[in-house]
Amino acid sequence: MLVENINKTALKEVHTHIQSYIHNTPVFHSSIINEITGADIKFKCENFQKMGAFKMRGAINAILCLPEAERKLGVVTHSSGNFAQAVALSAKLLNIPAYIVMPESAPKVKVDAVRSYGGIITMVPSTLKDREANAKRIQEETGAAFLHPSNQIEVILGNATAAMEYFKDHFDTDYLLAPIGGGGLVAGTALACKFFSDNCITIGAEPKNVDDAYRSLMTGKIENNSSTDTIADGLRTTLGDINFPIIQSNVNRIITVEEDEIIQAVKLIWERMKLVVEPSSAVPFAAVLKEKDFFKGKKVGIILSGGNVDLNNLPF
Amino acid sequence: MLVENINKTALKEVHTHIQSYIHNTPVFHSSIINEITGADIKFKCENFQKMGAFKMRGAINAILCLPEAERKLGVVTHSSGNFAQAVALSAKLLNIPAYIVMPESAPKVKVDAVRSYGGIITMVPSTLKDREANAKRIQEETGAAFLHPSNQIEVILGNATAAMEYFKDHFDTDYLLAPIGGGGLVAGTALACKFFSDNCITIGAEPKNVDDAYRSLMTGKIENNSSTDTIADGLRTTLGDINFPIIQSNVNRIITVEEDEIIQAVKLIWERMKLVVEPSSAVPFAAVLKEKDFFKGKKVGIILSGGNVDLNNLPF
Repeated sequence: MLVENINKTALKEVHTHIQSYIHNTPVFHSSIINEITGADIKFKCENFQKMGAFKMRGAINAILCLPEAERKLGVVTHSSGNFAQAVALSAKLLNIPAYIVMPESAPKVKVDAVRSYGGIITMVPSTLKDREANAKRIQEETGAAFLHPSNQIEVILGNATAAMEYFKDHFDTDYLLAPIGGGGLVAGTALACKFFSDNCITIGAEPKNVDDAYRSLMTGKIENNSSTDTIADGLRTTLGDINFPIIQSNVNRIITVEEDEIIQAVKLIWERMKLVVEPSSAVPFAAVLKEKDFFKGKKVGIILSGGNVDLNNLPF
Repeated sequence: MLVENINKTALKEVHTHIQSYIHNTPVFHSSIINEITGADIKFKCENFQKMGAFKMRGAINAILCLPEAERKLGVVTHSSGNFAQAVALSAKLLNIPAYIVMPESAPKVKVDAVRSYGGIITMVPSTLKDREANAKRIQEETGAAFLHPSNQIEVILGNATAAMEYFKDHFDTDYLLAPIGGGGLVAGTALACKFFSDNCITIGAEPKNVDDAYRSLMTGKIENNSSTDTIADGLRTTLGDINFPIIQSNVNRIITVEEDEIIQAVKLIWERMKLVVEPSSAVPFAAVLKEKDFFKGKKVGIILSGGNVDLNNLPF
């Protein structure tokens, strides 16, 4: 689908298409969190999504959009994170092979998760070049379709369904926040804002240490990160040429936060809301805590993007 | 209320009485947890209850049952755990004073929580004698009514409302499990089973290290614990003369579990269900994991009793 053709009807069709494969996750709030922030915050709990993150939405949509003959040859991606699990589980549900290229540096817990969903894993050296080359090789050998975790329109539209579900009961929200890594979630969220809310403004949240999206919005071209040193391991990647124009046109502002602010936000969500969320998920809430005056008295939505953490490696 | 007078109508009245002060907490399930256990498990999430535990139900009911003139003088209890917070928050909601006697050994995080709910704290040496003597003194000086965390009929009936809510959608459950500490939750749960389920059997779950309830059911009299050495810090107390007869008549079986089984169960609930639960809460699930053959193919309910954990002191 072309970006120009995206409209309310097209997005509704995406949701109809995928809804039997995903959870319509609950929206939670907490009076203590509202007291602390002075805002009226609602959390869309994608940590309760299948395989533990919103990535399921984009992965299943991208696979369902493949023509039947192409789909049965399988799919291939390279990822060490939630998208690998999402592709493996989606492929399992549709009974097709999923070839997952993973870097040798990937944590065992993530490799095990992909394997538990039946993913066919190829371990490669931890450079982007090796990952891409191996994905390409598998694509050629098997005929599997390549799926990109964030820079593919079907993935972005699948991701949009989280915010679409959210707006069903909360269309009068003032600001909806999503974390920014590769840009696929915030782009989908912004499209949902545009077509399904009254006048809701999309705000992105990003770790200061990997603020490529913040700088990209400033300079008007895709910037890179010089380091990937953040606890928010889902947000280390950079924007792509498909999601960047959507973000430029539809994301009003990006707030960056420090590492200790992220950890503090994770802790508050765990302690006060009793929700296990991964650090990347807590970045938008960290942004609200940082900019209390801006959000005071406003209706604020937050996409809690996922809950896959290694309990043996917690920041507290 | 006398135990003999408890019936379906009386329990419904308790729920009506307290429902504007509590959350009707959600019931969650997980296909992965069901795969692992071979049972069909539903979790009643009292970790999402106000102040983070089922104790809110018993505390608010006990206070609401006090005659107006008595109630306004306030309430007093001695506790270092969730009941202290529940009494403080309930009293705050009803605008009456809550005098909380806490042992000097209580973790700062718990003292802070009671204070945040407006509890008037008296710190005393960490012996039961000191705690009881100080509670009695405050009672005499202020006219405040003493509330017991588990051995008081109004508290037990308040606790029963968690299982009553659960049975509204799950009346055909085969087994409903609750942890056993002082016995107030399992007694209330068993009463709800008796009056609100088809043929559901109540099962208690207890750490092997503090298996006083297990032994009490065997010998027919209230047994004590020689140690309080369990990670399930909410389950270190012993049964009382009011809840024990209810347990004797209505609890079919008590399953005991080892410490490592409790930690493993906590970990599975955190990792797979993305729920922050305290170790005491995970004891019934540990029992299901331990006795897989017994629960296989059955419809099983579990009261997840609370989610108040110290994130700086986790077992993994």
